[in-house]
Amino acid sequence: MNIYAVVMAGGAGTRFWPLSRTNCPKQFLNIIGQKTMIEQTLERIKPLCREEQIIIVGNEEQSIIQKELLGETRLVLLEEPHGRNTAPAIGLAAIYLRKKGIADSPMVVLPADHFINNEEEFRNILLTGCALAKEGSIVTIGIIPTRPETGYGYIRRGSVFNKIDNDKIKVYTVKKFVEKPNQKDALHYLKSGKYFWNSGIFIFTPNTILKEIEHHMPDIYKSLLKIENAMGQDHYSDVLRSVYQGLPSVSIDYGVMEKTSSPVLTIPGDFGWSDVGSWESLYNLRQEEMDNEKNLVQGNNLLLDSNSTFVFNQSTQTVVGLGLKDLVIVNVDDAILVADIKKSQDIKKVIEKIKAKGLHSIL
Amino acid sequence: MNIYAVVMAGGAGTRFWPLSRTNCPKQFLNIIGQKTMIEQTLERIKPLCREEQIIIVGNEEQSIIQKELLGETRLVLLEEPHGRNTAPAIGLAAIYLRKKGIADSPMVVLPADHFINNEEEFRNILLTGCALAKEGSIVTIGIIPTRPETGYGYIRRGSVFNKIDNDKIKVYTVKKFVEKPNQKDALHYLKSGKYFWNSGIFIFTPNTILKEIEHHMPDIYKSLLKIENAMGQDHYSDVLRSVYQGLPSVSIDYGVMEKTSSPVLTIPGDFGWSDVGSWESLYNLRQEEMDNEKNLVQGNNLLLDSNSTFVFNQSTQTVVGLGLKDLVIVNVDDAILVADIKKSQDIKKVIEKIKAKGLHSIL
Repeated sequence: MNIYAVVMAGGAGTRFWPLSRTNCPKQFLNIIGQKTMIEQTLERIKPLCREEQIIIVGNEEQSIIQKELLGETRLVLLEEPHGRNTAPAIGLAAIYLRKKGIADSPMVVLPADHFINNEEEFRNILLTGCALAKEGSIVTIGIIPTRPETGYGYIRRGSVFNKIDNDKIKVYTVKKFVEKPNQKDALHYLKSGKYFWNSGIFIFTPNTILKEIEHHMPDIYKSLLKIENAMGQDHYSDVLRSVYQGLPSVSIDYGVMEKTSSPVLTIPGDFGWSDVGSWESLYNLRQEEMDNEKNLVQGNNLLLDSNSTFVFNQSTQTVVGLGLKDLVIVNVDDAILVADIKKSQDIKKVIEKIKAKGLHSIL
Repeated sequence: MNIYAVVMAGGAGTRFWPLSRTNCPKQFLNIIGQKTMIEQTLERIKPLCREEQIIIVGNEEQSIIQKELLGETRLVLLEEPHGRNTAPAIGLAAIYLRKKGIADSPMVVLPADHFINNEEEFRNILLTGCALAKEGSIVTIGIIPTRPETGYGYIRRGSVFNKIDNDKIKVYTVKKFVEKPNQKDALHYLKSGKYFWNSGIFIFTPNTILKEIEHHMPDIYKSLLKIENAMGQDHYSDVLRSVYQGLPSVSIDYGVMEKTSSPVLTIPGDFGWSDVGSWESLYNLRQEEMDNEKNLVQGNNLLLDSNSTFVFNQSTQTVVGLGLKDLVIVNVDDAILVADIKKSQDIKKVIEKIKAKGLHSIL
């Protein structure tokens, strides 16, 4: 079975400011492990497909980093002139594959910036998903929740899908996709055992997903057809640019998954997943590197009478902490963030304020 | 009445690290107001004496800053080759004056790095003190305490000293000098109304203090005589250096004030005094500059959802705070301090740790 991987690398990545920047979002940072998150994503998938079967959909603005990353590889790079969320990006990859004559092979859609601990189990689940996708199913990977998280969308499973005979891997039908819940509902979802986190990992064939896009988002489909017709021709870039300019920003979840009447399957995974969505989430993932006071430190620094503090120092300056608790300190060339780590989700408010103050150079 | 001012400028000044450095201690910083603390000290005293009547006793290591400060003035600079606390420094100034034939004029000993709000009242008290000193008394300026401070020494007053006929300014005899108390004693001192903070401001004539030094610290006195004999001669620096090498480090409080059987007087002042002993103390002094959330900010910065936070940024970096409370953030060229402002007294522990780690370049 030929498997194609579509790595979604166009994210703006403001959550790790000031380390992440407009032209260098999270997926290009090595915030966990030696390699960047996208490199880890690529290595994780490589046992399943050859290099030329891996497509990176990225933002034109980040193309310098992406091309450096590609180097001498045979990876495919599809550049979007503008970020338009996941539906257009997945559509672009699907028409690219259809144009190449690969309309009925499974394509695995993977965010470029997720952390996965047990990679082998992850790949086993993908393989099961690919077999189902090849038969025409839309497959999503659900994550078995470990806390009442309100920051993720959820998948409400239906009944067990009987076709798969595998003790370890369970497959369910999807009853519905659920938007980010409030605290009370999140707790209910966690206790019920019937809800999984929506990981943003999907598997389908180009034909399957393009049919769905055609049905639920006919305007986007027409736009994609224009791009498909231009592929391989001189005016491709111009067409791509002008078509993208007019595309709406819409997620595949909202545009297809929540609306489709086709059967959708979900495979719940328990492979140590995180979307690494905040400094706090990164801190929690790196438990093993903490000292006895739960401090996690990187770069020149010196902490006294401090606990549960995360110092990420990229500068030659020495960062000195005294009497700190639950703080994250990030020091880069032109900016320093000092934040209550439990409020690190609010970094988007920081970004808004920086924009409002016109300090674009530090974004 | 000719008054001489002796400004004690040899302090090491570690309390405002990382802004204060070995070669640039607190007295040379403009942390409150536009001018440096020593400049403010000099201006405060200038209405009482001519420039050539002001003697700065400073550390040789800081002489570059001191000479820049002196500029074209007629201020006198006495350089100590090593810091040996206040007794040798005061002794050096006293023999300098005696050598000049000014042994019976009052000399006002002033720390270079204190804050005083009501300067006119301060000078009035000094004038009263000078009159008493000229008659042979040892005079200390006490500060009427406003809180049960454990970081200062105290002066236990005795009876009212009757010789002064002044409604506003009271003079007391001193019963004893008391070392830094514990919390319970400090509270008792505050409530009793009989204890004042020891400000480190003293007035006496050179003859008076040299007699005390001769009596209570005869070895130091002998050393001072050697220096006095060499004054004005070519080998002065060599003698000064070799004598200082062997001097003990001892304060005038411990060496003379706590031991003398001569009558000591104290004049309590209520002129808005602070020794500005920590980042917290500086923060509290600058109430008027705070915003509605009690944040005090200086330099490029952006605070969100934060209160009671003090940002002192000397760098071109932007300091961003999110969800902070009771923090001080100080950003300079080679180091950043992030500290619980209520623990800013513990900065000495930071200094020790920096030394232990061999990071001398940032001291």
